[in-house]
Amino acid sequence: MVKVYGEEIQRMLDGHGIKVGDQIRLKMGNVELDGELMPKANIGSRDTIIIKMADGYNIGMRLTSGLEIKKLADGVPNIASFPKISLKRVESAPDVSLIYTGGTIGSRVDYETGGVSMLLKPEELLYKVPEIQGIANISVDMLMSVASEDLSYHEWGRIAESVAKALNNSARGAIITIGTDAMHYTAAALSFMLKDLNGPVVLTGAQRSSDRGSSDGFINLVCAAQLASKSDIAEVGICMHNDESDGKCAYIRGVKARKMHTSRRDAFRPINDKPMAYVWPSGEIKYAKSYNKVDANKHGKVTVMPNFDPRVAIVKVYPNSNPKIIDFYVNEGYRGIIIEGTGLGHAPVSTGHQDLLWLPHIKYALDNGLIVGMTSQCLYGRVHPNVYKNLRLLSNIGVIYCDDMMAEVAQIKLGWLLGNYKVDEAKAMLNKNIAGEIKSRLEFDEFLV
Amino acid sequence: MVKVYGEEIQRMLDGHGIKVGDQIRLKMGNVELDGELMPKANIGSRDTIIIKMADGYNIGMRLTSGLEIKKLADGVPNIASFPKISLKRVESAPDVSLIYTGGTIGSRVDYETGGVSMLLKPEELLYKVPEIQGIANISVDMLMSVASEDLSYHEWGRIAESVAKALNNSARGAIITIGTDAMHYTAAALSFMLKDLNGPVVLTGAQRSSDRGSSDGFINLVCAAQLASKSDIAEVGICMHNDESDGKCAYIRGVKARKMHTSRRDAFRPINDKPMAYVWPSGEIKYAKSYNKVDANKHGKVTVMPNFDPRVAIVKVYPNSNPKIIDFYVNEGYRGIIIEGTGLGHAPVSTGHQDLLWLPHIKYALDNGLIVGMTSQCLYGRVHPNVYKNLRLLSNIGVIYCDDMMAEVAQIKLGWLLGNYKVDEAKAMLNKNIAGEIKSRLEFDEFLV
Repeated sequence: MVKVYGEEIQRMLDGHGIKVGDQIRLKMGNVELDGELMPKANIGSRDTIIIKMADGYNIGMRLTSGLEIKKLADGVPNIASFPKISLKRVESAPDVSLIYTGGTIGSRVDYETGGVSMLLKPEELLYKVPEIQGIANISVDMLMSVASEDLSYHEWGRIAESVAKALNNSARGAIITIGTDAMHYTAAALSFMLKDLNGPVVLTGAQRSSDRGSSDGFINLVCAAQLASKSDIAEVGICMHNDESDGKCAYIRGVKARKMHTSRRDAFRPINDKPMAYVWPSGEIKYAKSYNKVDANKHGKVTVMPNFDPRVAIVKVYPNSNPKIIDFYVNEGYRGIIIEGTGLGHAPVSTGHQDLLWLPHIKYALDNGLIVGMTSQCLYGRVHPNVYKNLRLLSNIGVIYCDDMMAEVAQIKLGWLLGNYKVDEAKAMLNKNIAGEIKSRLEFDEFLV
Repeated sequence: MVKVYGEEIQRMLDGHGIKVGDQIRLKMGNVELDGELMPKANIGSRDTIIIKMADGYNIGMRLTSGLEIKKLADGVPNIASFPKISLKRVESAPDVSLIYTGGTIGSRVDYETGGVSMLLKPEELLYKVPEIQGIANISVDMLMSVASEDLSYHEWGRIAESVAKALNNSARGAIITIGTDAMHYTAAALSFMLKDLNGPVVLTGAQRSSDRGSSDGFINLVCAAQLASKSDIAEVGICMHNDESDGKCAYIRGVKARKMHTSRRDAFRPINDKPMAYVWPSGEIKYAKSYNKVDANKHGKVTVMPNFDPRVAIVKVYPNSNPKIIDFYVNEGYRGIIIEGTGLGHAPVSTGHQDLLWLPHIKYALDNGLIVGMTSQCLYGRVHPNVYKNLRLLSNIGVIYCDDMMAEVAQIKLGWLLGNYKVDEAKAMLNKNIAGEIKSRLEFDEFLV
């Protein structure tokens, strides 16, 4: 998978006994640059040498006459020469299954184009985190390599089955490495699909690719391993940086987590919640709220309810929005709609502009047997059907107010309910708590945490 | 609009010379309750007397034999008897126009049903905020009474015209009282529609209705009046509580504000930004970042570009989402689509499940002449077309990456652009900054502020 440098460069490197990963010096006139020789990624010119400098930045220098190369020190073995996983088994450490699904944590940057491709082998992932060896006996399950935004309910079901299989064998916990974009969607889906959990199921990943100095992936992975092997949290959660420093990670309940920043390492935040725990790479775990505990006397198996009906849409309401979008989904054979309303759960129901009136269209969906749930695009807080006249109009015709559930979670929950239960049951369960997604009380300090 | 109590209650009240707003005592056996007699709202039983107690809670006591009523003190004149606005003119204070559009700040709770109806006259609004008199000479423009979620571009245009008219007469600033649900949408629309502003245009409202002890509306209104009459910010912004206490308000740029909580007083937060200023009811203003300043030497008129093409949709991408939604909008004659992508601006473009593949549908929209913009559902951070392979696929076919603009703002901007410019011009302007909606640099402390 790893492309090599052009012939001329390769000859120069070979001549100096330099291989990828070695510390080298590039010299060109007055400019002298020290850094680690990076592998050539699979796009871009083969005539540019890429090095990673001590500050984490990567620089490419084009091969021209006058370029001098010098080896400073041996580096780690380059990716092509990695052996098959051969982590030593530590008898005192628990077994943990690492389910690899893809994402930035298993990717490399091409420093000429700035693009990222998935080409890392799991061997390198673990090799770069030697700490992990003493924490747990990790067995890697190369389940798939998919960008998280490309994951669908098909893959969710396979991931859930893999988790159950691992936990029903020797693993006390599972780690799922995954792309960050839809990590919280996957976490929510697994929260509903996995039943009778008796160990931690920890999703983790990286916001920065693993060959960048600033990558968060390794700390996240170590913390995830600590949680999976030591914590007594029998829930699905997301373990990512708690802040921009590398100090600690937060472990956020799968149904309450959301990616709130496009690029920061601490992008994952709890919505209407606090993290279940904070975890340090050293293994220290500080529990921050109540959670389902691992029960040592419980010997039942983890079961999976992987069925999922994808015919549930999220529909956002905004000024001038076209309510015919509801009819579109009805006509497409959808079975449920989750509205991202404004404020406490509003949609335009009393505007004088007939073409912008949502009420008749929502009623059309309900009359056709669809389940319609209401959430808030505010994200924080809860919807409430009884405060304003407009809200009561919606509630009265049968719209189900979904309390403090995020729209994304309500959509996944309803898809899962419709995949596993009769319509009436699904309808009754939509705003009843199943996996921590609905809380009777929101704390003051659960806003913008 | 204000309904009256039932005949028997009214007889008792009249017998004691009690009118709405008076302090009264209700006695029933051992129970004795003191509070302000509330008006009977237009729903619920007419045989229940409602009083507001000192702690702000409202209690209803049903008329039965044994109920005693006593008047303790005269209250403020009740709503029905308010005179037409007759605030005294203070020559030293500047003229400010208050444009009334509806919303909770002009509403009352019915304490039997918990529902809120709009029935407050602006006279009462100002009467309850005597401080406002010394701050500015407020002239009230009763433009409309619409719940903010029912506001459309028709109303936005009217509001913009009213602002321009006021500012082009004697007003140095304008206050717009408005429902909170879509306040930020309206603020964004006005930011684009109003040109050559030379004074503050301050949107404000209330999260709690004005007859509740905990209402935030009055402080917000006083702070808005301070901004409109004293600040030199020549921009459209939102003035609401900065925190849950009544200490100060934040003034957030209209294109960077978002309602982030369904019920908290400090629900409005800047996204990828800081407030332009903090303002105290006393009139103290602390400027927190750069902004367009009022120019005393500028004598041009405020102009309005109220045209708006509502045929621009926001489309959210999520796992299992149906890309045919794009075709729906194309077939409805839409001219633009703003995608709320995941992370840095992703949509499923390389999944193996053909029915979940967005790329061909996005291409269909582009081939049909639609402008397609990409934003991130993360809210915070910026999208970037060049980091991942999947992103480059979208960028290469012509999707416009909208930097750090919120989806809601991008949609309003594109609707406004298409209403006022040729397609090519609109396309070129979408990701160029016009009103502060795009920032070249995001600060570290602009996340979850």
